[in-house]
Amino acid sequence: MREVGIGIAGFGVVGGGVLSILRQHAGDIEARLGGRIVVRRVALRDLEKERSIDVDPALLTTRLEDLLEDPGIQVVVELIGGVDQAFELVCGALQRGKHVVTANKALLAARGDEIFRLARARGVDVYYEAAVCGGVPIIRTLREALASDRITALHGIVNGTTNFILTAMAEKGEPIERALAEAQRLGYAEADPTLDVSGGDAAQKLCVLAQLAFGAALLPADVLTEGIMALKPEDFRWAREFGYALKLLAVARRCGPAEGAAPGAQDQLEARVHPAFIPAGSLLAGVRGAMNAVVLHSEALGASMLYGQGAGAMPTGSAVVSDIIDLTRNILAGSPGRVPLPPAEPLVSVRPHAEVRCAYYLNFSVQDAPGVLARIASQLAARHISIAAVQQREQNDQGQPVPLVIVTHVAREADLRAAIADIDRDPTTLAPTRLIRIESV
Amino acid sequence: MREVGIGIAGFGVVGGGVLSILRQHAGDIEARLGGRIVVRRVALRDLEKERSIDVDPALLTTRLEDLLEDPGIQVVVELIGGVDQAFELVCGALQRGKHVVTANKALLAARGDEIFRLARARGVDVYYEAAVCGGVPIIRTLREALASDRITALHGIVNGTTNFILTAMAEKGEPIERALAEAQRLGYAEADPTLDVSGGDAAQKLCVLAQLAFGAALLPADVLTEGIMALKPEDFRWAREFGYALKLLAVARRCGPAEGAAPGAQDQLEARVHPAFIPAGSLLAGVRGAMNAVVLHSEALGASMLYGQGAGAMPTGSAVVSDIIDLTRNILAGSPGRVPLPPAEPLVSVRPHAEVRCAYYLNFSVQDAPGVLARIASQLAARHISIAAVQQREQNDQGQPVPLVIVTHVAREADLRAAIADIDRDPTTLAPTRLIRIESV
Repeated sequence: MREVGIGIAGFGVVGGGVLSILRQHAGDIEARLGGRIVVRRVALRDLEKERSIDVDPALLTTRLEDLLEDPGIQVVVELIGGVDQAFELVCGALQRGKHVVTANKALLAARGDEIFRLARARGVDVYYEAAVCGGVPIIRTLREALASDRITALHGIVNGTTNFILTAMAEKGEPIERALAEAQRLGYAEADPTLDVSGGDAAQKLCVLAQLAFGAALLPADVLTEGIMALKPEDFRWAREFGYALKLLAVARRCGPAEGAAPGAQDQLEARVHPAFIPAGSLLAGVRGAMNAVVLHSEALGASMLYGQGAGAMPTGSAVVSDIIDLTRNILAGSPGRVPLPPAEPLVSVRPHAEVRCAYYLNFSVQDAPGVLARIASQLAARHISIAAVQQREQNDQGQPVPLVIVTHVAREADLRAAIADIDRDPTTLAPTRLIRIESV
Repeated sequence: MREVGIGIAGFGVVGGGVLSILRQHAGDIEARLGGRIVVRRVALRDLEKERSIDVDPALLTTRLEDLLEDPGIQVVVELIGGVDQAFELVCGALQRGKHVVTANKALLAARGDEIFRLARARGVDVYYEAAVCGGVPIIRTLREALASDRITALHGIVNGTTNFILTAMAEKGEPIERALAEAQRLGYAEADPTLDVSGGDAAQKLCVLAQLAFGAALLPADVLTEGIMALKPEDFRWAREFGYALKLLAVARRCGPAEGAAPGAQDQLEARVHPAFIPAGSLLAGVRGAMNAVVLHSEALGASMLYGQGAGAMPTGSAVVSDIIDLTRNILAGSPGRVPLPPAEPLVSVRPHAEVRCAYYLNFSVQDAPGVLARIASQLAARHISIAAVQQREQNDQGQPVPLVIVTHVAREADLRAAIADIDRDPTTLAPTRLIRIESV
């Protein structure tokens, strides 16, 4: 039976999952492939550490170079994480004509372009289903199923940690500190949760998705990114009152060429990660806990959604193994490069954040004094921002800040920011105005 | 540039969609494939009929044989529907070493085994993404993404017509006749809606899905099938009262070997299509109108869901084109048979309907007389059926039938049927007891 040799770099939770799936389903996989997948080396940091899965000690090494130098390894599986060392490993593999499977969204978001360029030049494949939403076959769907379609928008709940926290806040009315602590206790959030709660993780994933879906060359810094730490329990109450759920969304939306651009200019792409009000009855609103989902809008298919577990040893491990199987098929059939890598040149440009258009929920903290609402309404009107709904709560103590909430129609981000700056400069405004964008998914 | 020739049989709504997508995205597809897809013949029934899309008249033919006899056609796209003629066409193509794309679930449900056997023998491919839930990439996901996973259950809303009707009944409280007439008026239901409302269409799709997901060799007659025509507005009210939504579900569930089977015996599979109460907060409950969705439970991934449009020229056409592109890739790379066809021998057997296990909603029509509830409760208990909830409405007119509803715990179908037969034989039971199964998806 023909064999394809693989080397696995990184033997943490996902690496263990990959090994155990390969082992458990070896018979099945061989029957389907007509060939055998053989793990030839496993690189890890600490040879002495206890493992949950037994591996022949002769396979273990602490030298990543051992994977590169072994001519029997045709596929390098990069599970070490981080950017610099992973980049070196992946490029070393590609340069030697080895195919790569990686679960590393940070790497692809930061240096995907260089990696894909090298892979193209060497005629080898890079597969990365596990890099975004582990158990959701979104990469495969974008690369293959939608090959003959044109995507107009992508909305995703792509970070399980924040969705777990927001679900707890929505369902238990908890403040964010308590929901975060609970997520940490249960292992859904890391000790340092910054990358998740800042929206940074979701922005990395959006870069990877937007490249496939739109041919965008995005860096995380290009994504308008807001995290969840400023959200308050009252935001969830207001969301319910207006018929919304509150989620951290990753959004990419094709919006035609820039205003006044030359004919034939590229489409622009809005790319943003932020808390968003979405209709309470929408499918994304029903995505609870640590689950992930991505909604695509495309010309032929209309709306479609993929939903599943975003993380965990087995979902992520299973995505890695499905990539290994796919690559093995290509190798056995002598057809690498079967599915094209993302386009070498960007097909869309990033719309500047100031030009993004959204509807907004605005939460003001103002003095309960005559004329305050009139002032705010006219400051919004002066910036061409039109009001869809207003709610003001009655207040018992005269002179105390009064909760005032306004929902706007779609407005330009720069206009909205300017209006808020005007409003916040006024002495009757007692605290900075807070905003949450509204998305109709 | 290398070319792959295709012949399209059937030029209805989907055929037109396929041609227009191929034409509109020709440049894109060529760039991705490094090859060109050329439509060499289009077979249709009536040369004179007006078409919504222009085709070179020299390509048109009324003879299906023209597609088979053309050596320049490497892929035959079967869109004529029905079983007999389509079977002949598909087998003719496979025998001549041509690959096949089909959107024909009826054909695959009835004669898929023979077709796959022939394809295996000839070393050619059969692709059929469009046969089940047009715009949802469920076939691709089952064939490829889950190659290293083991599926334990599949729950689907796979018929848009009935979901449209049930959504209207749930949201407007309409009787089924009115909801069906409205669906017909809007083009969601055919003039003869029997195949849809009987559950027959969903059963065909379940056969196709269960073969891929479980290696089951199912015929539609093996599927426990109940349609929607017996549903009443009060069923939707009761569903809401108990915290459920009411949907037509296709269910396949792996359930271990038969009781008392020899060690190592095959797992059994429950296969059924019927109206079902599902938790109101579940994702499937949020699938409205003519949309489709399939929820998979698998060992590695846990729960996952795919959602999208199930029918229509563009969604179905797009699925057909993604199959054509995939096949073209295989042909250009010289790697047909890249993804294995369903297993030749069944890996599971069908669990007899009598052995199916479910919880049930039972709707009794009984005299408002002393002792009636006690009688029914004891008749259920005698068959080992345990009661989870009871609701009896007060009645004004003594002697009139009184609505009595019981929700049971999980019970064996044969026991439940026997208990209902007992109950319905009693003179205080005024009309046959109605049942709806309860699924926790």
